[in-house]
Amino acid sequence: MKLKMMYSYLNSDINLIESELEATIEAESPLLRQASLHTLRAGGKRIRPVFVLLGGKFGDYDIEEIKNVAVPLELIHMASLVHDDVIDDAELRRGQPTIKAKWDNRIAMYTGDYIFARALELIGEVKNPLAHQILSNSIVQLSVGEIEQIKDKYIFDQNLRDYLRRIRRKTALLIAASCQLGAVVSGVEERVHRNLYRFGYYVGMSFQITDDVLDFTGTEQELGKPAGGDLLQGNITLPVLYAMSDRKLRAKIENVHEHMQQADIEELISMIKKSDAIEKSLAVSDRYLAKALSILDELPQNRAKKTLRDIAKFIGKRKY
Amino acid sequence: MKLKMMYSYLNSDINLIESELEATIEAESPLLRQASLHTLRAGGKRIRPVFVLLGGKFGDYDIEEIKNVAVPLELIHMASLVHDDVIDDAELRRGQPTIKAKWDNRIAMYTGDYIFARALELIGEVKNPLAHQILSNSIVQLSVGEIEQIKDKYIFDQNLRDYLRRIRRKTALLIAASCQLGAVVSGVEERVHRNLYRFGYYVGMSFQITDDVLDFTGTEQELGKPAGGDLLQGNITLPVLYAMSDRKLRAKIENVHEHMQQADIEELISMIKKSDAIEKSLAVSDRYLAKALSILDELPQNRAKKTLRDIAKFIGKRKY
Repeated sequence: MKLKMMYSYLNSDINLIESELEATIEAESPLLRQASLHTLRAGGKRIRPVFVLLGGKFGDYDIEEIKNVAVPLELIHMASLVHDDVIDDAELRRGQPTIKAKWDNRIAMYTGDYIFARALELIGEVKNPLAHQILSNSIVQLSVGEIEQIKDKYIFDQNLRDYLRRIRRKTALLIAASCQLGAVVSGVEERVHRNLYRFGYYVGMSFQITDDVLDFTGTEQELGKPAGGDLLQGNITLPVLYAMSDRKLRAKIENVHEHMQQADIEELISMIKKSDAIEKSLAVSDRYLAKALSILDELPQNRAKKTLRDIAKFIGKRKY
Repeated sequence: MKLKMMYSYLNSDINLIESELEATIEAESPLLRQASLHTLRAGGKRIRPVFVLLGGKFGDYDIEEIKNVAVPLELIHMASLVHDDVIDDAELRRGQPTIKAKWDNRIAMYTGDYIFARALELIGEVKNPLAHQILSNSIVQLSVGEIEQIKDKYIFDQNLRDYLRRIRRKTALLIAASCQLGAVVSGVEERVHRNLYRFGYYVGMSFQITDDVLDFTGTEQELGKPAGGDLLQGNITLPVLYAMSDRKLRAKIENVHEHMQQADIEELISMIKKSDAIEKSLAVSDRYLAKALSILDELPQNRAKKTLRDIAKFIGKRKY
């Protein structure tokens, strides 16, 4: 089943959020409007807003309350992607040229700032203090995660814990916040919204590990950008960590640098794919997924819970 | 009189804000902590927090309420400076190497994001909805102003209105917000806090015009960075706009580019200084200053009002 089919019953609310997103980044500056819309329209799964909606279904669901947290959350995610593309010097995202490629890095930086600022304006309208705290803490963790990722680039002497800490901040905490936020603004009791947070956290960890595996196993068409980009950029992801337990592979990986020959990086990717690194990484992803699913058992029975289960399973097995 | 002497009676509260600033940016990541502290300790006049404190003196002054808006406001200002230095490829600020120079542009971008995120966390604790709205709107305007500044770089066919609109967003609105915010959280009546906003706006305009003049007339020692940087970066400031009314000067200015010879830019700066551009610019700054001072007449009499007058006059005449 396609991902979007799993929550087609939420379509009208998803469309509402989509138009709110577009209305929010409407800027007086034509350049800013173009660059922001470019980012917005490049798509993305909008999985975070979907998690917010689903979390809300565990309580007194009111789309007006929900959208006040779903829209800024997705904007924060978008802003961080725009800044990531500056850092990674990325030319393509989701098959579209990045802002950096279409304009330049300076425009990309301020477009990210602008989207971030718009998110902040919306957060200003959130009345619930806990929702507020969750949103701002997510942003702090996100920026710490991003700076840690830069610091750890091309550092080959790192372990599983370093990696897990990075992806926790970079990805998992924001997905955890998504699942919790909708519930919090819908008056869901604490035990339940905390479990939704934990569910989101485990799904987020699984999601990012799968993402890091796909950077090796995916085709350029599936990824919307060339494969192996993470390694070339010096991002030591889980498959790389496992591959380094092989002495020969480790020696080759330690020689990776930004300007290496295309043929050399392709050869290395192919060697990593043939090693047991991919399998081991997917096993870790599966363990997080299993934890996520087991938390669902503790949640009240409803349609949203079934959808969360479907999405979690999809994320674990996705090819793109 | 030195600027700091004008408000020495606020010293204990200013020190409190200073330590709150330092405590806020305390990060788990050593790199982030170093880069943020580097920015913080490079100093600056902290004029925005001072305006917040002074605004508060018009009402029911409570430093606990005041600091909740003063600290995030200064953090927003700091974050925007960090990002500006990325854009301007600046090596020095206030005589200190920039983050970009000490580390690199990527670290600078995320340090800015991190400081911004910390500001957001604090804003989350602001209960007053109007204060909230003022803070977030300032950030939106700031990012729009910054992107407009990039867009208008090396565009010689622009007029006074374009310039004034840029500095309004880039500088004046944040100073206006500073003056208003302290008053708003201190329960000052609307007529008064709106006048404080207007005062801050005019002071901010005057301040930025003086700043743009100093970039021509200041020495490297006074500025903490080489003179003429704005023009070299393609920022068409007020003195440049006036200088372009001279045909010969206009031709030379239109030839400015980033990689021009040091001797050529120095010659051009000296020609602009000899023209009437500086005098005309200062006259505009003075007009804004006069407006600011006339608004003060409408405010209730108190010690803070006298200090606002002293600061405004200082800003109009400052040499650094």
